[in-house]
Amino acid sequence: MKKPKSNLTENKILDSYLKKLNFNKKNTFNFQNDAAVLKLKEKKEFVISQDTIVENIHFFSKDSPQSIAIKAIRTNLSDILSMGGAPHCYVMSLSLNKNINDNWLSEFTKKLLYEQKKYKFYLLGGDIVKSKYLSITITIFGLINKGQYIKRNGAKINDDIWVTGNIGDSYIGYKILKNRLNIKSKYFMDKYYFPSPPIKLSSKLFNKITSCIDLSDGFYGDLEKITTNFSKGAQIFENLIPFSKQAKNLLKMNKIQFSEILTGGDDYQLLFTSNKKNRSYFKRLSRSLNIKITRVGQIINSRAIKFNSFKFINTKKSYIHKI
Amino acid sequence: MKKPKSNLTENKILDSYLKKLNFNKKNTFNFQNDAAVLKLKEKKEFVISQDTIVENIHFFSKDSPQSIAIKAIRTNLSDILSMGGAPHCYVMSLSLNKNINDNWLSEFTKKLLYEQKKYKFYLLGGDIVKSKYLSITITIFGLINKGQYIKRNGAKINDDIWVTGNIGDSYIGYKILKNRLNIKSKYFMDKYYFPSPPIKLSSKLFNKITSCIDLSDGFYGDLEKITTNFSKGAQIFENLIPFSKQAKNLLKMNKIQFSEILTGGDDYQLLFTSNKKNRSYFKRLSRSLNIKITRVGQIINSRAIKFNSFKFINTKKSYIHKI
Repeated sequence: MKKPKSNLTENKILDSYLKKLNFNKKNTFNFQNDAAVLKLKEKKEFVISQDTIVENIHFFSKDSPQSIAIKAIRTNLSDILSMGGAPHCYVMSLSLNKNINDNWLSEFTKKLLYEQKKYKFYLLGGDIVKSKYLSITITIFGLINKGQYIKRNGAKINDDIWVTGNIGDSYIGYKILKNRLNIKSKYFMDKYYFPSPPIKLSSKLFNKITSCIDLSDGFYGDLEKITTNFSKGAQIFENLIPFSKQAKNLLKMNKIQFSEILTGGDDYQLLFTSNKKNRSYFKRLSRSLNIKITRVGQIINSRAIKFNSFKFINTKKSYIHKI
Repeated sequence: MKKPKSNLTENKILDSYLKKLNFNKKNTFNFQNDAAVLKLKEKKEFVISQDTIVENIHFFSKDSPQSIAIKAIRTNLSDILSMGGAPHCYVMSLSLNKNINDNWLSEFTKKLLYEQKKYKFYLLGGDIVKSKYLSITITIFGLINKGQYIKRNGAKINDDIWVTGNIGDSYIGYKILKNRLNIKSKYFMDKYYFPSPPIKLSSKLFNKITSCIDLSDGFYGDLEKITTNFSKGAQIFENLIPFSKQAKNLLKMNKIQFSEILTGGDDYQLLFTSNKKNRSYFKRLSRSLNIKITRVGQIINSRAIKFNSFKFINTKKSYIHKI
């Protein structure tokens, strides 16, 4: 079947799909200027992150516009969450190819709107260009109180190590979609397509935690980035690592290896460290926010990641961003 | 000849090429965090713009890394200049393909460093991903005094219309490179490869001008965006439009049409409007900054772009961003 010829122009895309995302904020000039204005209240600062997702690298061509929207937004959100930032606004550059039509843009922006309303942030501006491959770059702005950002290098010896959500579900979904795991499971695929970083948690962390990172390259590798990278280590109680019932089943059936699940990426959960005295705080917080928060180990005075009995034999300890 | 296999990793690129661009600013965390912190002095605001340039769309695959660096930076700079912003910092996402090697990155980042030192701004953060096509997204942050941004919609009847630099040279360079104009000229190609927006001018404009736009889509179309888009018009004295000696020659020889040169893009000069009383101010400014500033017409109370005698017959009045 011949594809309908697209008559999408930059102005059409702006008027029909993007303008609804600026929530009528005056500083966006309704996207009629080449630049937007951004103010900052006294005693506030921005945390800023930029992420690009590219067709066939970070998502599949056949993926739904909804899942691509979620991926573009939530991967960025998790970056500012790990610094303790609350979502404020974002700038988005869309590199669109010929497969993008009105229907795609409609579904894509509907999902963005849903995310923006849920987490209260708006589209500040951006760019629309054409490209052979679909690619989306988002620069996200989070707000923090002056100086109150969470460090990556602040972990102290004997601190507890905590993790939110479950580990590995998204990676298992990715493997299924890549036909590298011969099972059918909507559960895992949904976890891959719709990551859900613990957004409500972020503002409750400053002053309670010593370091934080979002899990995007895998539990093991990201753990290294807040420990061995700063001459510290971690003692992990492997039986405490949170897995979904579904992932536990696959582990039991040997369909997936423990070391592999610890080095897969795309969890977009938070890994953080905190003094032991805060244990009951996090337990209460977990209940009140309905977010799974699990203590999985502690910081040790030795530059290594150690497990209680499990021997980590996988040489690929983290996703290496090879160009 | 077989291409050497690239061993570039994200960390290698960060360490060898990108870290030098952050000027040791603490708020970049030396690119070890997923997000950076950005403060804002009291009485200041940001103007923010984001532009993506894509291989085979905005530049040619064979273009030098230096010219790609210049294009990525200066097209963004001109966006914040048109709002009156002074460059402060930028976030850059690099989508790199397999042709990118150490030599390319070395040349590319050397040129970025040169630009940053010249215009005094630093790299705040960004992302590195792989892609089939080279693509660069830059989000640039300019500083303005609170509320003192230049509007796009502020032109008043009888205001003078001014333009910086020369019109059309870059477009002619583009035509030559596309083999659509059978002449050889390093002059025009350089104008295409190395746009030079009038950066020193920008901070001198607020309070003196009523509207401003950067010329990226062509003189005619961009003029419409500050006039007919807001129910005003322009009377253009076509004999005053600034062309280089080289472009004048081509016009004389009928190698290029007047209407075509007015609708070509990529000038990255500024078009602005100002009360007649400021004429001597701009003449002095032009001399002291050594920037060509030319008065080319005036704002009229009629929703049209009029020329003295020239009849504009080209239907394509501006580069339409078609996806």
